[in-house]
Order: sequence, then C-alpha cells, then structure tokens
Amino acid sequence: MKVNVGLIGLGRLGRVYARDLAARVTGVRLAAIADTNAKLAEETARELDVPRWYPDALAMLDDPGIDAAVIVSPTDTHTDLAVAAIARGKSVFCEKPPALSLAQTQKMKDAATRAKAFLQMGFMRRFDAGYAAAKKRLDEGAIGTAIVFKSSSRDPYRPSLEYANPKSSGGMIVDMGIHDFDLARWYMGEAASVAAVGGTLAYPELNEVGDIDNAVVTLTFATGRIGVVDLSRSGVYGYDIFGEILGTTGTLRIGYLRETPLFVMTKNQVAHDTVPFFMERFRDAYTVQLQNFVDNLRNDREPPITIDDAMGSLRIALAATRAQATGKTVAINEENL
Amino acid sequence: MKVNVGLIGLGRLGRVYARDLAARVTGVRLAAIADTNAKLAEETARELDVPRWYPDALAMLDDPGIDAAVIVSPTDTHTDLAVAAIARGKSVFCEKPPALSLAQTQKMKDAATRAKAFLQMGFMRRFDAGYAAAKKRLDEGAIGTAIVFKSSSRDPYRPSLEYANPKSSGGMIVDMGIHDFDLARWYMGEAASVAAVGGTLAYPELNEVGDIDNAVVTLTFATGRIGVVDLSRSGVYGYDIFGEILGTTGTLRIGYLRETPLFVMTKNQVAHDTVPFFMERFRDAYTVQLQNFVDNLRNDREPPITIDDAMGSLRIALAATRAQATGKTVAINEENL
Amino acid sequence: MKVNVGLIGLGRLGRVYARDLAARVTGVRLAAIADTNAKLAEETARELDVPRWYPDALAMLDDPGIDAAVIVSPTDTHTDLAVAAIARGKSVFCEKPPALSLAQTQKMKDAATRAKAFLQMGFMRRFDAGYAAAKKRLDEGAIGTAIVFKSSSRDPYRPSLEYANPKSSGGMIVDMGIHDFDLARWYMGEAASVAAVGGTLAYPELNEVGDIDNAVVTLTFATGRIGVVDLSRSGVYGYDIFGEILGTTGTLRIGYLRETPLFVMTKNQVAHDTVPFFMERFRDAYTVQLQNFVDNLRNDREPPITIDDAMGSLRIALAATRAQATGKTVAINEENL
Amino acid sequence: MKVNVGLIGLGRLGRVYARDLAARVTGVRLAAIADTNAKLAEETARELDVPRWYPDALAMLDDPGIDAAVIVSPTDTHTDLAVAAIARGKSVFCEKPPALSLAQTQKMKDAATRAKAFLQMGFMRRFDAGYAAAKKRLDEGAIGTAIVFKSSSRDPYRPSLEYANPKSSGGMIVDMGIHDFDLARWYMGEAASVAAVGGTLAYPELNEVGDIDNAVVTLTFATGRIGVVDLSRSGVYGYDIFGEILGTTGTLRIGYLRETPLFVMTKNQVAHDTVPFFMERFRDAYTVQLQNFVDNLRNDREPPITIDDAMGSLRIALAATRAQATGKTVAINEENL
Repeated sequence: MKVNVGLIGLGRLGRVYARDLAARVTGVRLAAIADTNAKLAEETARELDVPRWYPDALAMLDDPGIDAAVIVSPTDTHTDLAVAAIARGKSVFCEKPPALSLAQTQKMKDAATRAKAFLQMGFMRRFDAGYAAAKKRLDEGAIGTAIVFKSSSRDPYRPSLEYANPKSSGGMIVDMGIHDFDLARWYMGEAASVAAVGGTLAYPELNEVGDIDNAVVTLTFATGRIGVVDLSRSGVYGYDIFGEILGTTGTLRIGYLRETPLFVMTKNQVAHDTVPFFMERFRDAYTVQLQNFVDNLRNDREPPITIDDAMGSLRIALAATRAQATGKTVAINEENL
Repeated sequence: MKVNVGLIGLGRLGRVYARDLAARVTGVRLAAIADTNAKLAEETARELDVPRWYPDALAMLDDPGIDAAVIVSPTDTHTDLAVAAIARGKSVFCEKPPALSLAQTQKMKDAATRAKAFLQMGFMRRFDAGYAAAKKRLDEGAIGTAIVFKSSSRDPYRPSLEYANPKSSGGMIVDMGIHDFDLARWYMGEAASVAAVGGTLAYPELNEVGDIDNAVVTLTFATGRIGVVDLSRSGVYGYDIFGEILGTTGTLRIGYLRETPLFVMTKNQVAHDTVPFFMERFRDAYTVQLQNFVDNLRNDREPPITIDDAMGSLRIALAATRAQATGKTVAINEENL
Repeated sequence: MKVNVGLIGLGRLGRVYARDLAARVTGVRLAAIADTNAKLAEETARELDVPRWYPDALAMLDDPGIDAAVIVSPTDTHTDLAVAAIARGKSVFCEKPPALSLAQTQKMKDAATRAKAFLQMGFMRRFDAGYAAAKKRLDEGAIGTAIVFKSSSRDPYRPSLEYANPKSSGGMIVDMGIHDFDLARWYMGEAASVAAVGGTLAYPELNEVGDIDNAVVTLTFATGRIGVVDLSRSGVYGYDIFGEILGTTGTLRIGYLRETPLFVMTKNQVAHDTVPFFMERFRDAYTVQLQNFVDNLRNDREPPITIDDAMGSLRIALAATRAQATGKTVAINEENL
Repeated sequence: MKVNVGLIGLGRLGRVYARDLAARVTGVRLAAIADTNAKLAEETARELDVPRWYPDALAMLDDPGIDAAVIVSPTDTHTDLAVAAIARGKSVFCEKPPALSLAQTQKMKDAATRAKAFLQMGFMRRFDAGYAAAKKRLDEGAIGTAIVFKSSSRDPYRPSLEYANPKSSGGMIVDMGIHDFDLARWYMGEAASVAAVGGTLAYPELNEVGDIDNAVVTLTFATGRIGVVDLSRSGVYGYDIFGEILGTTGTLRIGYLRETPLFVMTKNQVAHDTVPFFMERFRDAYTVQLQNFVDNLRNDREPPITIDDAMGSLRIALAATRAQATGKTVAINEENL
C-alpha cells in the first residue's frame, strides 16, 4: 500500500520535496499539495500530476485521502501545522528547525507524545552518503573514540534581508548552524556548553535586520570532548559543507567541492567548478530522507530523527546565538534557555 | 502531452531505464514493458505501476497505446526490433551498439531513412556532466584546437564468459570501446585509421571464448590528429572512466574516482572508496539521456546521436578489433569493413 | 663575503638547521656549532665539516670568527643566549618561541633595541611556498578583504612527557599554537581577545605533567574580524598543517596531506600516504628561512619577522592558554599578561 | 674519504647538478667543472666555490685530482667523453640518453667493459619518490602481476628549433620518451615490439627541422603484456609527468600536478598552479640520484642503472621513432636497429 502524502509549502525546498515525492521516492503518492500562493499550488499540481491542491494547509489536513503530512512551510508555521496534522491523525515529517523557540518545539512534542503520533524531523545531512558513511565508520570503531568534532557550513551568498531577519530565521547561527549542531549531537552526544564569536563582516546591510554573516562556535560536550562549528554566509566561491571527526586512532573527513568532474587546465593553472547550493549538494540526501520517511511509515518503524533531536540541536543553536551576542560561555540546559 | 513509451529488455541496464522512465523522467509515461522473461516483466510492471507487460516485444510494438520504443535488449536483437518498431510508426531510442556488424546497422539505418523515422542512439557519456561540459568548453575554444584525444575505460571485473563471447558481445574492444570511440568522433571528428595491441592478460579463462581483457588502441584522425583509447576488464579497484582532450592552449581532463565524499585517515594513510560500476557512475547521465529523448519527441527536435554516429563508432570498434587481432594498422573506410 | 654563522643547539631541529647551513644555504659558512652534549657537537662538526665546535655556547659566542648566531637551543635558554650574542655584537636568528614569558621576551627586545642589533625570529611557515603564496595573493587583493582566519595544526603523536611539561614547553597552546597565532597576525593584524576550549582527550598520561592534547581557540581581531585555531597532538594519521583565509570575494586554502605522489588503488579503495612530520612538511621552508636570514645580513635588510612579531604571537598564545584554563575570554593587552 | 668529482656541461641541467654536487650531496667534493663556454665555467666556479674550471673537458679529465666524471654535456658528446674518462681511470656518471645511436652507445659499453669501469647512467625518474615507491610496492606484490604500463610526459612548451632538431636531440620520441621507456623496462621487463602514431600538431614550425610534437607509442612486452606512452611538447598548462601500472589485483598511479599547496577559490571556481618544469618536478630526484652515485662509489656498489639499461631504452626509443615515421610495428631486436 502506498502512503498518501500531502505536502505543505512550495518554497525553494518545498518544490524539491514535491518533485521527489512525485517521482523519485517509491511507495508513496503525492496526493495533495498546499501553499498560500494558490497560483503556485495549482501550477505545481498540474506540472507534477498531483490530484488535489489547497491554498489552505488546514483544509488539506482535513482531506481524508491524506495519510501523512510533509511540512516544509516557513519555520514559524511548523508547530501549528504539525499539531494540527497530529490532531487529525496524520503522520508527520517536519523540516528543521522545529520552531524558533524551545517552548514552541515543546508544544509540537507534547502533541506528538499525547497522540503517540509518528513525527520525523528533517535533517537531511544524516542521509548524505558522506555523513552517513562517517557515522557508520565511527560506530564500527574505524577511528577509535571520537574526541574532536569540526563542522563548516558556507552559503555562497547572503539570503534576502527579509529571510535573514532573526525574527523569522532565528538568525544565522540558528538558521545555518542547526545542521552542524545536529551532526555534533549525532556523532558526539550531548553538548554541555557553547561559546561563540562572530559578526557582520561581509554584508554590512545585514545590520539593518540585526543578523550576522560569519561566526565560530566552540562546543564542550558532556563528556569533556570538544567541537567547533564555523558558519559563513560569504562562501562566495560556492556552497561548501565539510567536517571532520578526530578520533583516538584516526580521523574522518567529510565533504567535497567540485560539482562537475572536469578539470580545465590552462597556462599555469588547473581549475574546476564548485557546488552551487544546497539543492545540488544534498539532492540525493533529500530524496533518501523522504524515502526513509515513507519506508518507516510502511514498515511501522520509529523515526530515526525525533522531536527530541530537533529540540537538542535547537537548544545548542539558541545557546550559541546568545553566546555570540553576549561574549559569554552559555551552558546548555533547559533552565536557562 | 506525455509520450507513451514501451521499453524492451529488462536486463541490468533495462531495469535502470525502466525506473528512470517510471519516475525520474518527466513528460513521459512508461506505458508498457517487454521481456522474454515473462515473470520478470510481470514483476517489474507491478513494482513500477506499468499498465501493460509483454513477453513478446513485437506484440508490445503492436500496442497502439505506445508512441515510442526504448530498446535495451541484447545487441543482436537491436536491428530487428528497431526495424519492427519503425515499421509500426514508433519513434525509437536504441541502446548502443546498434548491432555487431555494419551490415545489420545499415538495415536499421535504411528502415529509418525510408520511414523518415525518429531514431536516437544511446551513448550516455555524452550526457554525463563532465563529458558534456568538456564538449561545451571545447566548442567555446577554452583549449584552442583539440589535437590529442585520450580515453580510458575500466570495468571492475570481467563479465561472464557467456557475455564476453565475441559472438554476442562483439569482443571487448567493441563492447567497451564503442563508448570511447563515440567520444573520439564527438570531440575530434572522423578517424582515418587505427592500430591496437592487447591480450588476455588478467583472466586466462577468457581464452575459452576468444576474448581479450586489456587493449590499447591508437587512432589517427582524418585531420592527422591522434588519439589513444585504453580498455581494461581488470580495473579491480573500481569502475574508472576518464579521459583528456589536449588542445593547443590547454587541456580538459574528465573523470573522477570517489563515490562517497569521505576520507578515512588512519596511521600514515588517507583512503577513500571508488565508483562501483556504470550504474553509479552514469546514473544521472542515463536519466538525462532519456529526458533528452523524450524532450526531443515532444518538441520535434532531431536526435542528437544518430544511427550514423553509431555506425561511425562501430566502424572504428570493428577496425580496432581487427587491428588488435592482426597486428596491422587498419584504415577506417566502408570498403574494408 | 660569506657570513660566518655559529649554530647553538643540535636537537632535532638544530640538526636540520646545521645541515641547511652546511650545504643548502648559499652565502654562508657554518663556522662553528655548540651543544652542551659535547660528543654530539664533535660528531656533527666532523660529519658536516664544521671547523669548530663548543660544548659551551657562550664560548662560541666569544669566537671572533663568528658574525652571526643561529639559536635553536631549548626555549628557556633563548633570552640569555640572544642577549649574550647581541652583547658580543653578533647578528641573531632565534627560533620561536622567543621565551615562555613576555618579561623574558622583553629582555631580548631591550637588548636588541639598545644595541640596534639585527634580530630575526624564526617562524618558518611564513617561508612555506603555500603560506607565502597565500600572503602574496591576499596582498594582491585576490580574495578582497580577509574576514575570517582558520588554522589547524596536528602532530602525529604526543611529545614525551618531559617535553610536554608546560614548565619547559609552555603547554600545547604555546608550543604548537604560536605558529598559528603568528599566521593570524600576519594575515589579519592584531588580536583583541581570545577564548578557548580544550582538554586531555587522547593521552590521559599528559595529566601527569599538566598538559592538554586538543584545543580550539577562537580569536577576535582588533578590527572585529574573527578567527579560529584548532590544535591536536593526536593527528594520528600524519602531520597535518592547513588553514584558510576567507575573504569578501574568495577564499585561500593552504595545505596538503600527501608525501609521496603515489596512489595505491586496490579493491574498492584508493589510498595514499601522509606527511610524516614537520621536518618533511617544512623542509624547504626552513631552508628558505635561513637563506632569507643570510641574504638579509648580506644586503643590510631589516628582519622580516621581528621580536615584536614574536612577542605578539606569544601574547596571544599565553592569553589562549589562560582562556582555556579558566573558561573565560581573555583580552590581549600588555597589562593582563 | 670524499669523492672528487669533475662535472662536464653547464647547460640547464648541468647547473642543477653543479649546485647539487656543491651543496646538497654529501660525501662528495665538486673539484672541477668544465664547459666550452669558458666565461660560464669561470663564473659558475666562483659562485659555487669550485676550485678549478676548464674550457676543455679532456683537460679536466687529465686532472689527477678528479676521481669521477659527471657528464651532462650535449648528447652527441657523451660517448667520446665517457670513453675518455674511462681511459683515464675515472668513474663515470653519464646523463641519458647515452648517445643518439646504438653503435655509439656500444662504444661506451665496450670501453667500460674492457676497463671494468664504474659507469652509471642517469635516469632520474627512478629516484623520484613516487616512481621509486611504485617500484617498491610492485615488487612487494601490492598489485599482483603488472600487466599494463602507461606513462605520459608533457613539456609545457616546445624546445628551440635548434634543440628540437632530430640530428642533435634524436627527435621527440627519443628525447622525451627515453625516460618513459626506461620506466617501462624497469617495471615490466623487455619490450618485444612498438608501434606509434604522432605528428606535428601544435607547432607547425617544427616541420622546419623535421620533428614532431605529439605522439602515442604502444608497446608489447616479451611477456605479451602491453604498454602505452604518450608524449607531448604542448602540455601548455604545465610540466606533467604521470603514469600507471595496472596489475591483476590493483593499480599504482604516480604523479601530481600542483606545485604550491594553495587553492584559490573565487566565484564558482577552485584553482591551483601547476609544476613549471623538470627542474621543479624532479629537483629531489636529481639530488637523490647523484647521492646514490656518490654512495655507490664510496661503498663499492654496482651502478643501479647500467649502460645496458640505457641501451635498452634507447633501442625502444629508436624503434618507436621508426614506427612513427613508417606507420609500421617495429620489433625490438639488435639486428634491425
């Protein structure tokens, strides 16, 4: 039996998910899509042969032909939509971050717990071939015990000022760093404290909305082990995501920076291109992640990435944001966040 | 309007094509599949939601619901199936090589010419991001005039003796090299003569069926420029396809050898994996090629790879096969082949 | 006229310098060597055809046949030896770090200032082809304005407990990090504050002498720009020194990790070796640095790396050491160090 | 006891050797140099502190203070100088190629045989870290049995027409290819026949002197195994020397193409430099080779590369030259060359 999925949100990533669900993922039927932009919803439905489309996500959630909701709408709508979907008995896949506050995230968690609902959070890096292989090798003991975690994320250009506004994005450390913090928890366990430096160094206009464009966050894990995450909106050469796990007997290095397997060799120079952006870098990871979601539903398996995971990485991101703003080390605990 | 495609042949590559047509290619409907293995055809149809399946390809070609045929059956059936499809007014995509002889290929060409049929030949490397970008850069003049062509193809292990038998495969130089010769013609123009050395160096058991496992073929183009193709069935480390175009002002180097973006770094060593086989290396190229086929049909465009192209590369492959067997340089012309 | 040099200290690096001065550097004569290990001094003098050797460095400095002293003895002897050499009118090259305290370093500076002596400090990375080219490209504007500095240093194994003892080495952050902090100042300017996390994560026995084995140091520069340095004694795969300068229009990435230009490709794996240690990685940089020293003397040029540079990087290193120990951000200024 | 060496020839490579012998090689004294350009000889002697210089090489060979001669003069003088040196009881290191004909080479061999002289031939690639490590791994069985040999040599620009003239250089296949053919024999054993294609494709002016600028040579070894060497004078991006040995259980890939460990990453592009020319690529190999020569003399060891080796690779080179000119496969045997 195929899973009938309704997709909410047809932004940049939403359209990637729509195409994946329409074509590349098996065991699923993209039965409906919803977007407040009715024209976009209608056109996308026609293009992808989606039977039904809605300008109102709640109306779509009322649709009895929908078994599960995939939520890729703006972050500030995640909680309400997830709660509504759960209330209607739908299984839910919700894109990161869960919300911009722990309180909102808690609401989502409470709803899922009460309803014993299936709620899988979207952190696609865990499904990337490189990061997944690193996890496997780490668990196999290929590098002994992991003692230092490093992760770098670079966007090729800054987002719009509207998007960057911390009121909607949570600020760069939340918006970008939550992926790195999720990896940190996955590979290393819980963080105990964070510190951060950063600033608006590349795009002064970001000061208008109060966001920064470069930061370095250090982490101390509960075990005493350490980590560092550096984030940049000004990786102008291309989208660049890479990291390392240093272990007691070896190191795992993840990442790559060439999109096309071509070297152009001219006088005294060898050159290749770079990865344009996240859709290219994580195209397969997104598909594998949605396939995993669908397979989990069809096989009654627990979600591999839970609301607790999402809350854990959000907690680090919020602490790091405060650490950068105050210049102080911030302990990761529920009381102070 | 979507193109209704019937697929013939559900071997290793046929199943890749079936999944592409069922899911990843847009503007198309995989309306029917055919394979002499009825069980396989039935199961694949069920798995991929293909409406109709046939154990008899000709019966499928009689199906009025089919606009176009994609032929991925064994090489010795290509001509008859293509001719039959053309006779029934279908557009045709035919996997390389067109046939094992020029005479058989000529039959396919004659049928297409008489019927003014659409006939696109499958050489997926031209749709690989690396090889396609190289063509673009070459045409833009990035390396001046191309004067030397190099191409290497390595399989990670030998095929079965049954498959390797030159009676069905044409021998290694035809079976593997036709891709390299197609690239040679694409980048450099027509070849004038070839010479070759080779032997059964890695797998003595191939002598039983009369095939070789390693060869080097040199080409002289009609322009006087030169090329070299080396082929190996014993690229035991992985599937490795790479090449170079040397120009008067620069060189283009195509290829890569890492599947997963992970380096495992242990005492005194850095290691990464390799590309397993052609399905992994050219997964996207296959999809892009079928998308191109479908788009061409929907937009009344001419096929970018014609039966003349296929005949041209087959002619080089047959000449190189003879050159290797006789130790003599063989001129490429229609008379002597 | 050749410069007559006397070399003090025949430890691991001292012997590298001795060979460089005896053979690879031009315009110089290694006229004398001194080491408290008289046997080692004698043997080395014989091996390298050095005319005179001394068990007592001060005696060597009294030698009127010596124009300049190269000091590579243990760090705690640097100040006294440099002051003595200056007092005897010798030009001085002194290996980093200048001393383990700013007060000691100041003594060396005062002596040089009073005597208007030539005093060049040894930070070989500035003479490495990669780091030097990065500086050149940065100054040429190849990446716009540098806004983020990253530097990583990894030793392949821990030093002896005796060496590691912070009383003689200054601790890992001073001993290793001073190179990275020198680069930070060179590329980015003065640092305003540092913070650090770290611990004894790989080699618990280092706790015996009170040293750590892994740390991450963040820097805020006086301009508000930022940096991060990560240090590890447990780069067990090999000696690995690399870094990045992120600019507003591009990024410079420095470093490499393969010693021998050979890839060994076996089933599903491509592997290469790593750089064993600093003698291999910076062999040429050491030679170029000494050649620069000699050329500066012969051409009456100012030293490119001064005692102020050495004091600047030591100041950061001491502040980072305190930051790691206290968990607090430490401002870089003369008062608090 | 140090070996007193007299160096003959102060051309481009001769000056590299002079500096190596003056400074980087131990156990040797560069006692004299000779060049028909007296001014150059005098200046070089002064610069490198060489006690004696001669405009006449034979006069230098008469110098009783010389134990051994290093011959780096033009190829057509090698035989006479080597014979003269041997006649005077000197040990000899002679740069490749031994001569431009087998007959001339035979004279050198006969002289050495009669006199039981020490005669070591210069093929520096065998002392390159990459090629040497490949030999070691091959002998250790790391890739099973070697069955296919590949070698590529590219100069960044054409030589002067004067140099290129086959009358003095032997033509491109001899001048460049002899290195690749030496490697072929080293890794694979004796060649049985060669074939070649090539032409004057990049620099039409080379037609004036009758040389070509690009060629591909195929080899069949006595064992039936195969090889291919491609040569280019138009590797305009840089000096590029690389190769592969395909074995039954793996492949060794040798070579690299980056001089400076720096990546410049700007919008959509990652770029690095290339190796300028042979002095940079093989700087260490030249030194190691001369050190090996000196060590052999001091330890009464046999030369690792003999006149028979040089004759073997010259024989292949001459056969390949004829093969390219005639378009015919040429057997490697003493009768027909």
